[in-house]
Amino acid sequence: MSQVLKEKINPSKAIYDRAVEVITGGVSRNTIFRKPHPFYVASASGSYIKDIEGTERLDFANNMASLIHGHSNPAIIDAVTEQLQKGSAYTMGTEAEVTFAELLCDRVPGFEKIRFMNSGTEAVMTMIKASRAYTGKHKIAKAEGAYHGTYDYAEISQTAKPANWGDIDNPNKVPVVQDTPDGILNDVVIFPFNDTERTLNLLDQHAGEIACVLIDPVPHRVGLFPANPKFIEAIYNWTRKNNALLVFDEVVSLRVNFAGAQDSYSVKPDLSAMGKIIGGGFPIGALAGKSEIMDVLDPRGTFLKHPHSGTFSANPVSTTAGRVAMEMFDEEAVLKLNAFTTKARKQIEEVIKLADVPACTTGAGSMFKIHFQEKAPNTYRDAYQNAETRAIVDELLDYLFLKENIVMINTLACMFSTTLTQGNVDKLSEGLLRGLKILKPRIDQLS
Amino acid sequence: MSQVLKEKINPSKAIYDRAVEVITGGVSRNTIFRKPHPFYVASASGSYIKDIEGTERLDFANNMASLIHGHSNPAIIDAVTEQLQKGSAYTMGTEAEVTFAELLCDRVPGFEKIRFMNSGTEAVMTMIKASRAYTGKHKIAKAEGAYHGTYDYAEISQTAKPANWGDIDNPNKVPVVQDTPDGILNDVVIFPFNDTERTLNLLDQHAGEIACVLIDPVPHRVGLFPANPKFIEAIYNWTRKNNALLVFDEVVSLRVNFAGAQDSYSVKPDLSAMGKIIGGGFPIGALAGKSEIMDVLDPRGTFLKHPHSGTFSANPVSTTAGRVAMEMFDEEAVLKLNAFTTKARKQIEEVIKLADVPACTTGAGSMFKIHFQEKAPNTYRDAYQNAETRAIVDELLDYLFLKENIVMINTLACMFSTTLTQGNVDKLSEGLLRGLKILKPRIDQLS
Repeated sequence: MSQVLKEKINPSKAIYDRAVEVITGGVSRNTIFRKPHPFYVASASGSYIKDIEGTERLDFANNMASLIHGHSNPAIIDAVTEQLQKGSAYTMGTEAEVTFAELLCDRVPGFEKIRFMNSGTEAVMTMIKASRAYTGKHKIAKAEGAYHGTYDYAEISQTAKPANWGDIDNPNKVPVVQDTPDGILNDVVIFPFNDTERTLNLLDQHAGEIACVLIDPVPHRVGLFPANPKFIEAIYNWTRKNNALLVFDEVVSLRVNFAGAQDSYSVKPDLSAMGKIIGGGFPIGALAGKSEIMDVLDPRGTFLKHPHSGTFSANPVSTTAGRVAMEMFDEEAVLKLNAFTTKARKQIEEVIKLADVPACTTGAGSMFKIHFQEKAPNTYRDAYQNAETRAIVDELLDYLFLKENIVMINTLACMFSTTLTQGNVDKLSEGLLRGLKILKPRIDQLS
Repeated sequence: MSQVLKEKINPSKAIYDRAVEVITGGVSRNTIFRKPHPFYVASASGSYIKDIEGTERLDFANNMASLIHGHSNPAIIDAVTEQLQKGSAYTMGTEAEVTFAELLCDRVPGFEKIRFMNSGTEAVMTMIKASRAYTGKHKIAKAEGAYHGTYDYAEISQTAKPANWGDIDNPNKVPVVQDTPDGILNDVVIFPFNDTERTLNLLDQHAGEIACVLIDPVPHRVGLFPANPKFIEAIYNWTRKNNALLVFDEVVSLRVNFAGAQDSYSVKPDLSAMGKIIGGGFPIGALAGKSEIMDVLDPRGTFLKHPHSGTFSANPVSTTAGRVAMEMFDEEAVLKLNAFTTKARKQIEEVIKLADVPACTTGAGSMFKIHFQEKAPNTYRDAYQNAETRAIVDELLDYLFLKENIVMINTLACMFSTTLTQGNVDKLSEGLLRGLKILKPRIDQLS
C-alpha cells in the first residue's frame, strides 16, 4: 500500500467491507479493484466523478473507454428517460434497433449488415463462431497480449509474460483461465502484433485451417499503438489467398476515426465486433460486416448456420442511448476530439521532458498511454511492463487518484471524452508532473 | 404464411423492409422473428404492449421471461431515472452492486458469494470456466435439448432432432452452430434429462474428466417441466463421488421459488447462473455459489485462477433496476404469483378439455407450456415437436397474436408477471378456446 493511501481514511472502506462478504474479491470487475479497497461513486457528470466521501475527480478513464461524452450526458439521459416510460425490453421489435443499425451501416463503408448483442465479449464470440460457420474452418489466429473479452478462444495469451511467452518465432499459447481445455489451445494460433514476417510464417504453418485472423487495430493491452498499415495489408492478403477472414475487434478502437480504426487502412476487415461507446453508457455489443458472411445468422435462410438470440440484445434502452451518443459523435466531433487529444498528448510529452524521466506516449485518435521507456514501443514484448515497472505505475496511479483527484485507466492510459476541456488537461499535466517528479528516482532506476 | 396474417396489413412491414437492408434477417434476436415480418412496439405498460399500428396486446411472454413485474413498472422506472442523473457506469465501484449482492445472497441459502455479468450467456460461460479452474477438469455434461445461452460448450445438442440425436443410451453431440470445433464436442457429454439411469451410465463413462454437470432445473426448451428430485439427487451424489461440481442454470428458473428452483430439492448446486428477472428489465447476468469455488475469481488471491472483468458488469442501472424488481418479488409475491399461475394453468387445462383436443400443460412456479399430446412429457424426446406439430403451434401463435391480441412465447409457453389479472387470464382462456377449436381438425390428426 502506498503512503498516500495509508493517509486516507474514508467511508468507501465500510462499503467494501460489506462487499467482500457477498462478492468474490468485493468487485464484479477486476479493473475497478484497488488495494486496499475501491472507492464508491455518489454521482458523476461530464468529466467529473464524485465519490461518497465527496471528493470530485477528473475522469480520463470514462468507464474503460465506453463513455465518449463523459457522464450523465443530458441528451442521452433525456432519450433514455423517455424510452423508459415505454418499456425497456419486449418479445417484439423496436424501431430504435433499426434506426441505430442504419446509422452504423451508413457510418462505416464495410458494414453491410449488423446484429446487436449485449457486450463486446458476446460480439467477439459471435464473430468467431460466424467465421467458423462461414469458412468451414476451426482455428483462429490472434495477437499475443491482445484483449478481446472473455470468450476463451479470444483470450489466449492476453496475459503472456516473459516466464511463459516462449520463442517469438512461435509464441506459446498461454491460457488466461487455469485449466482452459487443450481443445481450445489447439485451435488458437498466437502471433506477434506488428511483426509481419513472423506472423505470416506462423499463419503459413496453419494455412487451410484458419477461419479468421482476429485483430484489434489499436490494441490497448498490447500497448495502445496502431497496427502498421503494412502489417494489416500483409495479413489481409494472406487471408485472401487462404480462404480465411480478416476480422477486427473495434470494441475500443471504433472511436479512432468516424468510420472506425479500419478507416486508417487501405484494406478492410470482413467482420467487425463493437461495444463500449456504441452503447452510450449502457450494455451493448454488435457484429457487422459483409452481407454474405453475416447471412450465416439469417433465420430466414433455408440452412441457417448460426442460430442467434439473446434476451436483452438490441433492447431499446441501449440502442437509443447508443444512437444519440453516436449522432453527437459525428465527423466533426471525432476530428475535434482527436485534435484535442493529440494536443493534450504533446502536452504530456512536454511534462515527461520537464520531469526528465525515461518515458514516452503511444496512442491513436482520442486515446493515449504513458510508457516508462525512452522509445515508443511497437510490439507487445517491447511494451511489456515487468513487476518493478508495474509497481511504479501503480504508485503513480494511486498518487494521481488520491492526491491529484485524477482517474486514469490502470494501464496509465487516458480515453478522452468530448466533455474534457483544456483546463482539465492542464490539471492532468500539472498532476502528472508532480507525480513523475516524486517517482523520478525510481523511474530512473528502471531498465 | 397463415390466412389471418395475409389479411393484416400494417406499417410494421415498412420498418421491417428497412431492417432487412441493415440487419441480418432484420432482427438481432431470432426469437422475435416472425413471418413475413415482426411487429414493432410503440409502448408497453404492465401486461400490455402496443404496436406502432395501435394494437394493444396482452403479454404473456414478458421479454422471454425477463420482466417479472411486466412493462414499465413505476418503481423500477423511478429508481432508474434517479440513477441516470448520477451516471450509468464508472471505472469505480457503486453501492448499488453491493446492496443487490446482499439481497441475492440473503435470498438463496447456497449463494455465499456472487459476481455480476451482462447476460445469462456470460454467466453460464463464466460458470463453466470457473468449474474447470476449480476442479482442474475439462469436460462438462449437459442435457439434450437444454438451452443455456450461446457459449458453444453450453449449446451443444440444444436443437437435437430425431434425424441427428442418435441412440438415447449415448446421445449424439449435435452442434447448434455449423463447424463447431471438435475440441468443443469432445469435451461435452450429452445426457437425457430426467433419465437417471442412462445419465449416470453416461457420466460414469467420463468419470474423472467431468468438471461440472450443468442443469436447468426447469428447462424451457427441453419442455418446461421440472427435474425429478431423484434425478437431481442422483446427479448430486455422483458429483460428490467424482470430484465434479453440480451447477444450475437458474437464468429462467430462479423465479420458481423465493430461493430459486433449487429450493425444491434436498440437495443444492455448487454454483448457479442467473439473468432475466434479476435485471429488472435491463441486461444482467450473475454467478453465485460456494465461496471456496467462487474464490477462483478473486483478484486478491495469490494465484488468481480466473481473471474476470467486463465493461458494463455490475453497472448501477441494471443492479438498481434488479434490486427494486427483486425487492418487490418478495416471498409473499412469489407465493401469490405461483398460486395465481397454478389456477390459470388449471383454467387452460379446462379449455383444452372443452376444445376436446389432445393436449396438456407442463410448468412450474409462474410458468407453463402447452403441448399437443395427451400425456404430459417428462423427457426432451417425449416433448419434441415434429414439423407437423410445429406448423400447428405456429398457426395457433399467429391466430392468438393477430386475432386475439395475445403474445405468448414461440414455444406456446406463458411466463407470468405480477401485473396479470384474472381478467387477463380469462382473455387468454377465451382466445385459446377459439384458436384450439379452429385448429382441432388438424390437432386431432397429429400423433
